[in-house]
Amino acid sequence: MKHPKALLAALTALISLALAGPNAQAEDGYDLWLRYEQASEDLRPDYRKQISAIAILGDSPTIAAARQEMATGLAGILDKTVTVGTSVPRGNTLVAGTYDALSDLDLDRADVGPEGYAITQMRRDGRILTIIAADSDIGVLYGTFGLLQHMLQGEPIAGIDLVSRPATQHRLLNHWDNLDRYVERGYAGQSLWDWHKLPDYRDPRYTDYARANAAIGVNGTSLTNVNANAEVLTPQYLEKAAPLADVFRPYGIKVYLTARFSAPIEIGGLDTADPSNEEVQAWWEAKAEEIYNYIPDFGGFLVKANSEGQPGPQDYDRNHADGANMLADAVAPHGGIVMWRAFVYAADETQDRAKQAWEEFVPFDGQFRDNVLIQVKNGPIDFQPREPFSPLFAGVEDTKLMMEFQITKEYLGFATHLAYLGTMWEETLDAPAQRTEEGETLTVTDMMVSGNDAYTVSGMAGVANIGTDRNWSGSIFDQANWYAFGRLAWDPALDAETVAREWAAMTFTPDRAFLDPVVAMMMGSREAVVDYMTPLGLHHLMDTGHHYGPGPWVDDLDRPDWNPAYYHKADEDGIGFDRSSSGSDAVSQYAGFLREEWDDPETTPDELLLWFHHLSWDYEMRSGRTLWEEIVHHYQRGVDEVEAMRETWDGMAPYVDAERHAQIADFLAIQEKEARWWRNACLAYFMEVSGRDLPDGYEAPPHDVDHYKSLYFPSAPGNG
Amino acid sequence: MKHPKALLAALTALISLALAGPNAQAEDGYDLWLRYEQASEDLRPDYRKQISAIAILGDSPTIAAARQEMATGLAGILDKTVTVGTSVPRGNTLVAGTYDALSDLDLDRADVGPEGYAITQMRRDGRILTIIAADSDIGVLYGTFGLLQHMLQGEPIAGIDLVSRPATQHRLLNHWDNLDRYVERGYAGQSLWDWHKLPDYRDPRYTDYARANAAIGVNGTSLTNVNANAEVLTPQYLEKAAPLADVFRPYGIKVYLTARFSAPIEIGGLDTADPSNEEVQAWWEAKAEEIYNYIPDFGGFLVKANSEGQPGPQDYDRNHADGANMLADAVAPHGGIVMWRAFVYAADETQDRAKQAWEEFVPFDGQFRDNVLIQVKNGPIDFQPREPFSPLFAGVEDTKLMMEFQITKEYLGFATHLAYLGTMWEETLDAPAQRTEEGETLTVTDMMVSGNDAYTVSGMAGVANIGTDRNWSGSIFDQANWYAFGRLAWDPALDAETVAREWAAMTFTPDRAFLDPVVAMMMGSREAVVDYMTPLGLHHLMDTGHHYGPGPWVDDLDRPDWNPAYYHKADEDGIGFDRSSSGSDAVSQYAGFLREEWDDPETTPDELLLWFHHLSWDYEMRSGRTLWEEIVHHYQRGVDEVEAMRETWDGMAPYVDAERHAQIADFLAIQEKEARWWRNACLAYFMEVSGRDLPDGYEAPPHDVDHYKSLYFPSAPGNG
Repeated sequence: MKHPKALLAALTALISLALAGPNAQAEDGYDLWLRYEQASEDLRPDYRKQISAIAILGDSPTIAAARQEMATGLAGILDKTVTVGTSVPRGNTLVAGTYDALSDLDLDRADVGPEGYAITQMRRDGRILTIIAADSDIGVLYGTFGLLQHMLQGEPIAGIDLVSRPATQHRLLNHWDNLDRYVERGYAGQSLWDWHKLPDYRDPRYTDYARANAAIGVNGTSLTNVNANAEVLTPQYLEKAAPLADVFRPYGIKVYLTARFSAPIEIGGLDTADPSNEEVQAWWEAKAEEIYNYIPDFGGFLVKANSEGQPGPQDYDRNHADGANMLADAVAPHGGIVMWRAFVYAADETQDRAKQAWEEFVPFDGQFRDNVLIQVKNGPIDFQPREPFSPLFAGVEDTKLMMEFQITKEYLGFATHLAYLGTMWEETLDAPAQRTEEGETLTVTDMMVSGNDAYTVSGMAGVANIGTDRNWSGSIFDQANWYAFGRLAWDPALDAETVAREWAAMTFTPDRAFLDPVVAMMMGSREAVVDYMTPLGLHHLMDTGHHYGPGPWVDDLDRPDWNPAYYHKADEDGIGFDRSSSGSDAVSQYAGFLREEWDDPETTPDELLLWFHHLSWDYEMRSGRTLWEEIVHHYQRGVDEVEAMRETWDGMAPYVDAERHAQIADFLAIQEKEARWWRNACLAYFMEVSGRDLPDGYEAPPHDVDHYKSLYFPSAPGNG
Repeated sequence: MKHPKALLAALTALISLALAGPNAQAEDGYDLWLRYEQASEDLRPDYRKQISAIAILGDSPTIAAARQEMATGLAGILDKTVTVGTSVPRGNTLVAGTYDALSDLDLDRADVGPEGYAITQMRRDGRILTIIAADSDIGVLYGTFGLLQHMLQGEPIAGIDLVSRPATQHRLLNHWDNLDRYVERGYAGQSLWDWHKLPDYRDPRYTDYARANAAIGVNGTSLTNVNANAEVLTPQYLEKAAPLADVFRPYGIKVYLTARFSAPIEIGGLDTADPSNEEVQAWWEAKAEEIYNYIPDFGGFLVKANSEGQPGPQDYDRNHADGANMLADAVAPHGGIVMWRAFVYAADETQDRAKQAWEEFVPFDGQFRDNVLIQVKNGPIDFQPREPFSPLFAGVEDTKLMMEFQITKEYLGFATHLAYLGTMWEETLDAPAQRTEEGETLTVTDMMVSGNDAYTVSGMAGVANIGTDRNWSGSIFDQANWYAFGRLAWDPALDAETVAREWAAMTFTPDRAFLDPVVAMMMGSREAVVDYMTPLGLHHLMDTGHHYGPGPWVDDLDRPDWNPAYYHKADEDGIGFDRSSSGSDAVSQYAGFLREEWDDPETTPDELLLWFHHLSWDYEMRSGRTLWEEIVHHYQRGVDEVEAMRETWDGMAPYVDAERHAQIADFLAIQEKEARWWRNACLAYFMEVSGRDLPDGYEAPPHDVDHYKSLYFPSAPGNG
């Protein structure tokens, strides 16, 4: 070695490396809203002062879960080990339990109902007691999550005094998961349910799934696809479903299964599934009995019948009530319910598809059993970025309805587009739907909840966006939609902005410098998608099968109502689906005050204009623009909005860990690219059809329509 | 509140809760052998003393990767931040770089070859320098991993002096991943390759995949299923493959693609794929050119042709050499290779399938281009728990061969059975295959490596067991097989026990109290599987299609050689496939000394007995048992062995985190259940066929054969 110093000198230029701690686990989104980061310096000392010990009274598995959650949560939030004494705790104590367990405290009982809870503080003997009280163990668990979330959202707990109880009874996720773990319309990996390893292996993730759901009040999960496989009702699969129910039970979550209507034939050896056949009825009764032997608190059946090729009672000239009631009778002795989907459209029907659910169900109003809920998609077509609410919500008087929202973004950009759906669901839930004789306006929520004997028989279902992806939902912001679904099912009166704020605070940080711009971005995000995909009441413009990307030109599918061209009806004169009284008259399915408003383009709000009306490209809009100009304006606005979202997010780097920030930034870049693609493809097509040029100031699509038509996507996920 | 003290006293009985740190991430197996836990108290002070600064010289992306890895690794192992100075470091320094970069040190150059490295220590001016030197940047990266692994295995570094270089040139994973992310014979979730989000989203997991592979010397990856889809060769997918190659490049890993032989028809618009057709040749040349425009260092093609329905040159009356050479010519100008699989069996062939690969390839010995490697499965049938080595390894003189092992456990218990395959591969690699005229015995490794112009044209492929499961491989112990494949591809002379020990030390702990029993358990695990599935040379007894569980009774499939009954040929008189000179004479494909040994049941080793011979149930074994008794003995021994493995693992709880310990314990319980199932189903069937009872002391199968036949598994994963 001649010049050791020369070598060592060469080291001078070495870049300095940031040495990460070896086990500094990346922030990969797995923890959802159970990310128990320590509270800010502002709050932590006060939290610590007010809670120096925990006591959760009781000994059920649910109470044990509450105890574990509170211990884990507070250890994180307070950043210290909280004493759980074996002797009388000194100091300020958090006490949780049922009112019965807490009877010594002589509390005023709040009206918390079977699942709700109250959180209060009191002073006793110089100590502060923070009290979570409920009528039931599950209420105690919900209250445990409630208090932890309050703290995660950066709220002080001194003097806390709140009561929370769910407005709906059945708050369900619907997993469209096949038994081979393929998830229809799933953009987050495979099904969580590892049927092959069940019943022997209980993946710890099942417990985390239950925790995350209990934290937002979800109390039921339908495990399997509504396009059902009868196999799941065989002993082989019931044996596998049972341990899932066991894992979920302490968290208040019931298991439901999808019932294939033809199961008596496929796995029962019968030659019919006719609901009026006594053998068929007996088969379902015995099957229900068998299921309840495996799962004593089985929730019931979810059924898609006579829809998109699924078998159903109409195959035997029976009606939906005949079918639903047969299943309802089978589960009724065990306390089960049947959720019968209203998403039906007849195979041989050529009239406006938007009208069909109403026409198939309203005639049977009053004929369904008490334990049947008709599960109605929010809009009359199929989870489009914007639809008016389904008229069925105001169409029946003696039929119990439950809402079906789609959490997974089949039509709103899959996993990569940031689209917060709280606003969309709020729009539906708050929509005026009916007027009483006294002139009081009732919303969709009123029709669904109060209109249906209130708490005891109401419900809300969300088609899950959950899979094996590490972050559960395919993207971090898609977690917000799972969260919002749970919160709105618990309380449909919550406003979407509050929910967004709660979620963002717990998922990232309660720092207002982060929350204000990010919540604003979330609040505008769904409207951006509407703008760049289907503005002004347009709908069903997506490409066929996978539903990824634009396909407004598609007009050659077997059924008329599978074609985008059927829905937009664009030609050289105009665009839009005439559902007014001079068209399909779908508008007549709504209450009088809405019928009047929506029958006339002049009074129809812009966002539903082309849903209800076919108008000339030159139709003059409120804005002063022509319809054509307005369409172009919206498509452009959608793209601009995504650009703005990217800018907002770029500025959030100081508040977010590098890993999640980068993934979200990458996904926003994809969203911008795809927003442009939607804009360009749709505008290129409408330019061709209308023979019109773009207004001044708008950039021309870089390709002609044939280019956009030529694109194909064999790897698009989630195809049915 | 009447009795506050009474309430508080009630708290006395509360159980004490262990409060986990909130962000104590569970040990979920994601970190593989890159789990940089701090060294033991015995070693850490000395490591710290010897390395107080790091200098990795150079500025390529590969050197940057080495620098990042070393920084991350040492921060963990030393549990301190290691100085990477911008001025001359004081103290003992780790210096890494190419010999050229380290020329000031005047090192003796070791013969490390293009990918190897040397690690030494020297003293200079009172300082200790630990030196990693190589001829290439990738050698520096391999040496970085080498030193880190040395420490993770609990070895002292004082006086370290080692040289390591790979014995084979091409060390590839073969992913049998479809473009829809379904993995054929995959038991670890979906394909890692998220084709839908590529090229825009580069999942950070791609980088971790590259790190894990570089750490064990894997330098190539074939991304797509050998049952190939021509789509992957279209620009749409090449654009998506390119960023994967970009991510892998700094880690020395080249991307390969599977070429569907009929691609010129399917995506090229030609009406033939005849390799003698000039248009077809030109199409492949242009396609190669196009691929290299996307991926300048593209590795080449992997091809399954004229096998199990795949198209190939025989469709045009051409032979394997014609097909392989055409593709080889297309990639040769760019430095690419073609790996042409020898797993072929003719659709209309009725003779012994074990003989076919030999018969299809030996006639073309010497006719393949220099850049063609014939990729040969370890055995002549199909990755069974035990097969003799493929005779092709000793059947050609002027043809380059590479080994194909199956890492994914298609036939060895999917993800839940613990079966360490290092022993199986060692058995093949070390098997005597040929004798020279001088009487020297050559092993399979000798035939494959030395026999083929040594380093420059040899290779080993492993069918990957990797998917989106958090632990990559479906189970923790399946990670050992990925690890062992890489290590044996780097150095086929390594013994399986050493490799198991390395892996277990890095994956769990280098504590001998753990390593000794666990490595012993691993070493015996594959033989246990052989015993409870296919002892004594039996093979192909699994059920059809999914290959999950036993199906020895299956005899009704279209092709004779798809039926288990074809392979065991059991009847009331005896069992086994006569491949001796009086039978199919497959034995004649082996070298003389093996032919002699294996042609006579008296000299054939027990473990291959029924592979080569059909024998009476009463045939007397070396053990003194009859063949029937010996079969029963082995089936029982397999089950007993799994019971013992469970006991061993139960005792390891003190050394392993709770999460991984529990999953492994759960999987071992499944393995025991399924080992019994295999034993009982096979014995019940052979009892029925042979008309024999079990020997005394063996428990009868609890069900008759019809029960086992009735089982079916619609959710079994990985079906082709």
